[in-house]
Amino acid sequence: MLSTMRIAELASASGVSATSIKWYVSEGLLPAGERTGYNQTEYGDDHLARLRLIRSLVEVGGLSVAAAKDVLVAADDPDHPFGNTLGVAQASLPTRTAPPSAASVARVAAAARRQGWTVWEDHPGLLAAAGVLDRYDALGRGDLATTLPAYLRAAEVVADADVDCISKNLDAGPAAAAQTVVVGTVLGDALFAGLRRMAQTSESVRRFDSGSPA
Amino acid sequence: MLSTMRIAELASASGVSATSIKWYVSEGLLPAGERTGYNQTEYGDDHLARLRLIRSLVEVGGLSVAAAKDVLVAADDPDHPFGNTLGVAQASLPTRTAPPSAASVARVAAAARRQGWTVWEDHPGLLAAAGVLDRYDALGRGDLATTLPAYLRAAEVVADADVDCISKNLDAGPAAAAQTVVVGTVLGDALFAGLRRMAQTSESVRRFDSGSPA
Repeated sequence: MLSTMRIAELASASGVSATSIKWYVSEGLLPAGERTGYNQTEYGDDHLARLRLIRSLVEVGGLSVAAAKDVLVAADDPDHPFGNTLGVAQASLPTRTAPPSAASVARVAAAARRQGWTVWEDHPGLLAAAGVLDRYDALGRGDLATTLPAYLRAAEVVADADVDCISKNLDAGPAAAAQTVVVGTVLGDALFAGLRRMAQTSESVRRFDSGSPA
Repeated sequence: MLSTMRIAELASASGVSATSIKWYVSEGLLPAGERTGYNQTEYGDDHLARLRLIRSLVEVGGLSVAAAKDVLVAADDPDHPFGNTLGVAQASLPTRTAPPSAASVARVAAAARRQGWTVWEDHPGLLAAAGVLDRYDALGRGDLATTLPAYLRAAEVVADADVDCISKNLDAGPAAAAQTVVVGTVLGDALFAGLRRMAQTSESVRRFDSGSPA
């Protein structure tokens, strides 16, 4: 059953301020409400669902509003609902690093190919990973890159589950698959980061008893 | 061999503006330079190394300056160089989510225990992961949580490599181990996020040929 609401109700239901809602509309992230009278606009459940998606991308995924818009526009694209969205969602990685060195790009690419992956030299994920290796080197901690093979194996396990989940949603239509890609890719990072920290603590307690060798 | 430099040289060498350098000093992230004369302060290689570490935490890790300070102070703590730092570095997760529901916390904790992990109900990683499950539910995409077991297995592989790397650095002294925790925990998220996207593309191309089933 569809419900309609004023902007104040939409704000309280979504946890997004009326000011932000108007901003999202003006930025094209959220469709405008229906004008139902003088100084009166009504919003529906679709607006609420969209706002929850925007909040997840911005607050959990850490995407900028501009990046969130790119991802949502791609997800809305009827022509390339899936492939397009996957690419844009992957390009949505916050790029806080400078362009990576060619050496690091080649190093990550070679390791990925040894893992049996198909590699594109300009893939945003490759550039992001290579940028991290450059940071390790700049910090004189190139030794941290010894973890690369384990990270590759783990990424394969996660990506396999991600694509399984996408495949299941293809039957529900391209829109559902696109949303799976958007939400799964962005929120999946936060999920893994949390689990990784739990596992670090559990493993160091197992090895060092107190969790600290000191 | 140690070199000393003026703030302008330090700024160009580190890529951090003189204004930010002064701010980091006033915020306690960076030790003050040595006053060598009227309106003249000298900085050393240790300042440069520290600035590179701060940049990695803030620009790559996405930590706030306040969070970066907490992590660095813990890493500098001579009393609990390792255990303390691990805990603080793990608490450095950008917490963009509201407090998680008890149901999601219990769900992640149970899955982790099935995986054989030792679980603390108030672990920041557990709260972060549970917060993501809540977002999935709010978006009507609880089905995404079917990936949880695979994520747990992958997190174990990564954490095992992380703790290996920490152990190797214990011989180099607690300071090196602490820095390994700080850099490895924060930058490791960015490394994995990049590799995960590479693997997603490689896997979807393998399954869907064009990378898109559409």
